[in-house]
Amino acid sequence: MISIDELNRILQTKFKNQEIEKIVIDEAFNRVITEDIYSNIAVPPYNKSNMDGFAVNEKSDEYMMIDEVHAGDNRDLKIEGNECTWVATGAKLPEGTNYIVPVEYLGIETEEMASYIIKNQNKIILNLNEDENHILKNSYLSNDPFEENHIVKKGIDIDEGQLLLKKGTKINERNIGLLASAGIKELNVYKLPKVGIISTGDELKLINDVNSKTIGNTVKKAGCEPKFLGVSKDDFEELRELVKTALNEYDVVITSGGVSRGKKDFTKRVIEDLGGVLVHRAKIKPGMPILLGEALDENNCNKPLICMPGNVTSCVIIAEVVVYPFLKSLMHESMDKHIKQFKISEELYSQFDRTVYMPVRIEDGVAYPTFEGSNMIKSVAYADGLVEITDDKKYNKNELVDVWML
Amino acid sequence: MISIDELNRILQTKFKNQEIEKIVIDEAFNRVITEDIYSNIAVPPYNKSNMDGFAVNEKSDEYMMIDEVHAGDNRDLKIEGNECTWVATGAKLPEGTNYIVPVEYLGIETEEMASYIIKNQNKIILNLNEDENHILKNSYLSNDPFEENHIVKKGIDIDEGQLLLKKGTKINERNIGLLASAGIKELNVYKLPKVGIISTGDELKLINDVNSKTIGNTVKKAGCEPKFLGVSKDDFEELRELVKTALNEYDVVITSGGVSRGKKDFTKRVIEDLGGVLVHRAKIKPGMPILLGEALDENNCNKPLICMPGNVTSCVIIAEVVVYPFLKSLMHESMDKHIKQFKISEELYSQFDRTVYMPVRIEDGVAYPTFEGSNMIKSVAYADGLVEITDDKKYNKNELVDVWML
Repeated sequence: MISIDELNRILQTKFKNQEIEKIVIDEAFNRVITEDIYSNIAVPPYNKSNMDGFAVNEKSDEYMMIDEVHAGDNRDLKIEGNECTWVATGAKLPEGTNYIVPVEYLGIETEEMASYIIKNQNKIILNLNEDENHILKNSYLSNDPFEENHIVKKGIDIDEGQLLLKKGTKINERNIGLLASAGIKELNVYKLPKVGIISTGDELKLINDVNSKTIGNTVKKAGCEPKFLGVSKDDFEELRELVKTALNEYDVVITSGGVSRGKKDFTKRVIEDLGGVLVHRAKIKPGMPILLGEALDENNCNKPLICMPGNVTSCVIIAEVVVYPFLKSLMHESMDKHIKQFKISEELYSQFDRTVYMPVRIEDGVAYPTFEGSNMIKSVAYADGLVEITDDKKYNKNELVDVWML
Repeated sequence: MISIDELNRILQTKFKNQEIEKIVIDEAFNRVITEDIYSNIAVPPYNKSNMDGFAVNEKSDEYMMIDEVHAGDNRDLKIEGNECTWVATGAKLPEGTNYIVPVEYLGIETEEMASYIIKNQNKIILNLNEDENHILKNSYLSNDPFEENHIVKKGIDIDEGQLLLKKGTKINERNIGLLASAGIKELNVYKLPKVGIISTGDELKLINDVNSKTIGNTVKKAGCEPKFLGVSKDDFEELRELVKTALNEYDVVITSGGVSRGKKDFTKRVIEDLGGVLVHRAKIKPGMPILLGEALDENNCNKPLICMPGNVTSCVIIAEVVVYPFLKSLMHESMDKHIKQFKISEELYSQFDRTVYMPVRIEDGVAYPTFEGSNMIKSVAYADGLVEITDDKKYNKNELVDVWML
């Protein structure tokens, strides 16, 4: 039998996802880009004002105001000599602007500006001495109106031609701002794997199917959409047809049940018939009977088959430690386990040379094992995480253990 | 000015979500249930066999086989005296079953069972002495076929009437197994808040709108669906109409821009006109101009208005520290911050009596501040987390800091 790490390596090495689709950036949350993205524009696209005030070309005490520029005004203006224009915060600056003189240096408020202009017939006189306290009420203004230029330079946020995001970056709520800012509307991203789920077992006529629901939610947790394809009886032909059809429509086919060695365990025979077995049984507890296969679909594309144990808790654990990382790998995402440390409430050790995944519930900083049997859902339903116990490890009661939070 | 904690407290205390909807469990991933859920059935619903073997009533060396029970067979059978039935793993046990004798005790494999039965005319003779090694090849079988009963008791996983999940539980890939197991098809869950997003600013005629995209992705990260309702010019009537319409359709209305004190900052006047201002400005950097309001919709339902600063990085940070926790509170989820510790690459301290949220990028275990100005998206676009620096705190270079991973 192979280890669970080796099993995951086989699965993730054998099957890769290079399928690409183009989407609009509004749909790009949590998607991974397939190529480097550069900006075609500079941000801001022009020099702009950081203050309400006057754009001036050279230092002076007195200016002639030749125009007004508000945010959203795209005209190409020009100033020279002692000409100035009114510029609102964020406004595009006229060519020749070397300083913004904040409106406070007139000794007035922004609101008083219009009447001041009319009264002074467009003559702007800096009021540096008359009412110093008034001018300097904003602590960030010095007595020298030219000390700081208050100009936000074109391209200071994003340069034209700049690399914005590297291939393999996942779009989030922060880096989408770069794309929006640079005016990027569409992106190439890796397609999400489509996952088809099949349950097997005659007993599902009498008891409720649990595995398709837990597997389905693990698929959703990974960020993919699961599709439940139905229940097969313990019947070779019926299961074979379901799996064969699923292979043509889905990138990953997951079954549960029928992977032991009993006479009604048809799954392995179906895999052998449709393709081949990659792995049967791994050194893991619970979930040892895990079966991995491969088969060609009608387009000769080789597809992975993950055949989960029928026991409900084994199925949940294999979904967490095999299916979830595999889907993340197909999505080109790193598997960033969230590990927290807690005291363990009782002694824990691995068994039979297998890696044990012990489900634990966290309460008041203590991790309590919840496992009571792999065929009972209560063994994992209330767990918050898993403790991984490799073959040679033993944890004493009250020892700090790493818990992989689910 | 109030602190950011106080601002969040006001928002989360004033607005609660008690709206409920009934959904099928396949759509319940990540949803929060509004009531305790009990099981109407026992799981398993009958005593069942844990092995392939024979259901027997009393200890004996020899039995008469009166029937076969396979998984999925729902008949009510009964055995007494030295009668037995064949039972497959998972099969429903006949009334009167006290032990399962595993098939191995006949000295044969499951596959050989049919011919054995014919040959022996339904007489089942335990083969304890003849071929001990054969019988005991499975290390879990003792020499005494009655030592363990191999019966899975009705209700051992779930009792009839048992409390499965408490009100306020979020459905995940583990606990959905309980619901599926108990045959629960539908659930009452809290409705997800509908979030409408409006951008404001004349400058959006010339530069790209960034805030609606970053806010939108924060809303998605929380697990809700955002709806972008358009851009308003810096115009009182236009913004008022957009917000008023949004109030009728959305549970939360988020605007960005126009929250400073300039003459074109209409947002506060719109809020005052439609309802009232709850908070304007908070002791936070970046994002100080944050504005919270409330207003009645056409059904006299009081709705929250969150008016974000226009600066792109301020907007991202306020979305993370105000909008995200608020949505989680409306979804009845706890705000489980993921905190990791890293060395900080430079000295950090709070400023002007405000709580500073410093975006940091993590590289090789070191946190590097990325902030260069609240109006530049590069200040936060490449950040992995935030360092919260409250008013009296100072971190030295290389000191370990808590990073709130985003």
